[in-house]
Amino acid sequence: MAKIEKLTIPLQKKLPPRSVERLSKYRRLLSMLYAGNGEFIFSHDLARLLNLTPEQVRRDLMLIGLSGNRRKGYSIRALIDIIGETIDKEEGYNVAIVGVGNLGRAITAFIRKAQTKLNITAAFDVDANKINREIAGVPCYDILRIPDMVKKLNISIVILTVPSDVVKDISDLLIHSGVKGILNFTSVHLDIPSDVYLKDYDIITSLEEIGFFIK
Amino acid sequence: MAKIEKLTIPLQKKLPPRSVERLSKYRRLLSMLYAGNGEFIFSHDLARLLNLTPEQVRRDLMLIGLSGNRRKGYSIRALIDIIGETIDKEEGYNVAIVGVGNLGRAITAFIRKAQTKLNITAAFDVDANKINREIAGVPCYDILRIPDMVKKLNISIVILTVPSDVVKDISDLLIHSGVKGILNFTSVHLDIPSDVYLKDYDIITSLEEIGFFIK
Repeated sequence: MAKIEKLTIPLQKKLPPRSVERLSKYRRLLSMLYAGNGEFIFSHDLARLLNLTPEQVRRDLMLIGLSGNRRKGYSIRALIDIIGETIDKEEGYNVAIVGVGNLGRAITAFIRKAQTKLNITAAFDVDANKINREIAGVPCYDILRIPDMVKKLNISIVILTVPSDVVKDISDLLIHSGVKGILNFTSVHLDIPSDVYLKDYDIITSLEEIGFFIK
Repeated sequence: MAKIEKLTIPLQKKLPPRSVERLSKYRRLLSMLYAGNGEFIFSHDLARLLNLTPEQVRRDLMLIGLSGNRRKGYSIRALIDIIGETIDKEEGYNVAIVGVGNLGRAITAFIRKAQTKLNITAAFDVDANKINREIAGVPCYDILRIPDMVKKLNISIVILTVPSDVVKDISDLLIHSGVKGILNFTSVHLDIPSDVYLKDYDIITSLEEIGFFIK
């Protein structure tokens, strides 16, 4: 059996965002290969499948303390586990979705279907027809209960899909309530403190950007 | 009235992606201000609202050949128009959505509600219950008709929300059919030719990345 050598205890906080992103992608690809009965993989195969260089892949895996076996490559199962140890919290992350219109509802269902350590534990909305019911399998609370429920449910990440005119107030409320990560699907720029990690998924801007570059 | 001076005919193809992204954001913000009866704006106000430096904003606007009036700033209406002239095609872009499950359907509705030059003109799916019907207000065709319909409807941009196992085949089909831009909501890495512009919106990877950095 190919041996995976654990070189050092990695300084996990020091990983660059791009490496974390790639590690997450490696794991998803590896999980598919593992489900298809794959056992071992070489860094150059992993690289080819993801259109990266083998050096890049090896560097990322070295960052989490791994080097492969020259003859057989990496054990897929071990890679999945060790990437998981590095990038997952033991108990997973509690995620809430704020704004459960069509888009919020679809994203919730999408994430619930993917097998990850992300637990969508709450939805928030202003609509009385949604509050105190389950939306896409997740209990929906009044948006005014954000401070209370974020603490109670230990929610650290929020997906924001609310109308533009309320984004600012709601993001302030979320940050005051202790939320540490935001995936922002609105087109509104969020002014956030440096200890909050933000990613913008601005669909319209991205499509306009694509449009410009293919003109 | 504040005068907007058009300095030069800009070399539009030379704009950096980040500038295009910001110009698109400026326009959206300006449209909201205009709707609220705003007439003029200074670059430093635009900068403050978007958390940028005034120099950055002025540089972006210079790139499209604009300089403001020192006393009154920029005319909001003129800014909106000239950004539009720069980043929009005259007739707008024809966009298709490929895969109209819950997420595809919600994204379609979301884009149709936003007022942009993006025309969602077709949806594609494999589901016989969707084919030849309207989904979220858009006619849905069999995925096998992609080559035919992409040409007939002059579709240049595609939003990809299909299951992982078919992404590769479908993206090959799209590229062969002449699609030039892809917004990829799947977690599968696309290997695309250099004349196709790709943006990845990989929700799960992004949430895992956020999770890692707030750990």
